[in-house]
Amino acid sequence: MDDTGRRYHTACTGPAAGTVQKHSDDAEIILFGACFCPFVQRVWSACEFFGLPYKVDKTLFHLDPYKKPEALLNISPKGLVPAVILNNYDPPRSLNDSTVILEYLEDLAKERSGKSLMPPLSDPYARALVRLQADQAARTVSAFYKFLQSQSTTDQIDAGKTFLQTIEATAELLERTERQTSGSPNKALGLWQEGGELGWLDVLLGPWLFRATNVLKHYRGFEIRSAKVSAWIQRIIEDKHFAATCSDEQLYVDSYERYAFNRPNTSQVADAINSGRALP
Amino acid sequence: MDDTGRRYHTACTGPAAGTVQKHSDDAEIILFGACFCPFVQRVWSACEFFGLPYKVDKTLFHLDPYKKPEALLNISPKGLVPAVILNNYDPPRSLNDSTVILEYLEDLAKERSGKSLMPPLSDPYARALVRLQADQAARTVSAFYKFLQSQSTTDQIDAGKTFLQTIEATAELLERTERQTSGSPNKALGLWQEGGELGWLDVLLGPWLFRATNVLKHYRGFEIRSAKVSAWIQRIIEDKHFAATCSDEQLYVDSYERYAFNRPNTSQVADAINSGRALP
Repeated sequence: MDDTGRRYHTACTGPAAGTVQKHSDDAEIILFGACFCPFVQRVWSACEFFGLPYKVDKTLFHLDPYKKPEALLNISPKGLVPAVILNNYDPPRSLNDSTVILEYLEDLAKERSGKSLMPPLSDPYARALVRLQADQAARTVSAFYKFLQSQSTTDQIDAGKTFLQTIEATAELLERTERQTSGSPNKALGLWQEGGELGWLDVLLGPWLFRATNVLKHYRGFEIRSAKVSAWIQRIIEDKHFAATCSDEQLYVDSYERYAFNRPNTSQVADAINSGRALP
Repeated sequence: MDDTGRRYHTACTGPAAGTVQKHSDDAEIILFGACFCPFVQRVWSACEFFGLPYKVDKTLFHLDPYKKPEALLNISPKGLVPAVILNNYDPPRSLNDSTVILEYLEDLAKERSGKSLMPPLSDPYARALVRLQADQAARTVSAFYKFLQSQSTTDQIDAGKTFLQTIEATAELLERTERQTSGSPNKALGLWQEGGELGWLDVLLGPWLFRATNVLKHYRGFEIRSAKVSAWIQRIIEDKHFAATCSDEQLYVDSYERYAFNRPNTSQVADAINSGRALP
């Protein structure tokens, strides 16, 4: 397979394009992002789930992630997306970092509507199990990029194994959670549970699991063999809140070609992986 | 300075020894740890602050961190401390990972007594600012070990600069928090505020700031020049809940000699730093 020089997309397609359209009026939360960015998809799918009033500013959402506009640098010092402007404060405030924004939305929604991606406050142990899952999920995120950016066959085999191991370790934690919690829907399990509803781990890890089924499949021939994990990923992809933030698969395949051939200046994330540093 | 082959201590001294004594009766929460470990001190100082019923099992607390007992491996797969057994469940449950345990204790205390290290749920933005601080604090933790394990003079100068920059970045976030929040005590500021009370960041970062004033001072001649940062660190060290978990300074100087000379097999943390991997 050769590097065909495809560029990343700068506008959503498919269901995501319709969702951008629906959220183009001024609102309390203004979301800055890039159409193919999984860190953005975390926050975006949570906005959909919580039903909080948000606007996808098309100019700012469809930004070229490699040419940072001033408006973004003002609220996210490294120019990283996602970032949000919060118009419910006077003067408006801002936040960056996908997990910080997620925690904010979770707290805000709990106050407003009682909607939550987490188990209830009355069950601290179930919440702790979800936080253990989330810790493990961070390893899968790094391993995804390492796998996609690996160039030699032996490096790809090693990185592919590591990527799979991180998912298996998460599956083990989910099985432990299954044994130690109950309820239907069980928010500690999210969509791992058949008939469950979107949960914290789904939102945190879903964007990379989704990209594993198209980007890693296309460039690395990756397949999930565990039927249980496959079914879980399928439930995430089909969840209406998550699906509303998905573009057509070709957008991801195109946009990640630069990672798959480890082109120079691909992104701050790619640079961190290449140099063995923590993600920015 | 030469490596004098000092061994890490396996029993607390000073105020911490008295606290171990006071918490030797059976209780709901059993804490596993090692006397010099900063990750353990996070959880331990939080237990003190929340006033939750806990026991420091002396056999298990004063364990040799380099010879993992079976009892620890059963509840913390990599043998890392801190870990806790929770006797308020039948059968008893367990947790590992310092931040996961902290979140658990925070949730539990909120249910039990309303005590909290975080701003209230009714102020999601203040809570998000604390989470931004916590994200930044993670960089200081890595930079601490990098600095202490650096051997050549140029490496030490570089690593020392990076360590200082991570603290300055945290100070900037605290100043932003000062501008965007209010209240006295202001839980978003913790002990950064004169007259404040112990907060999330203090507990998360305090153990390394404390060790900077003895271990880094001793082995690397490190000094904090900012009066504001120095005063903040002093307030943490003097806080009664934090101070109750501190041994005499010599214990830390002795126990960290192995890091300062980067001896082989120092710890899983040291290995991760040496190989550029994320902390375990």
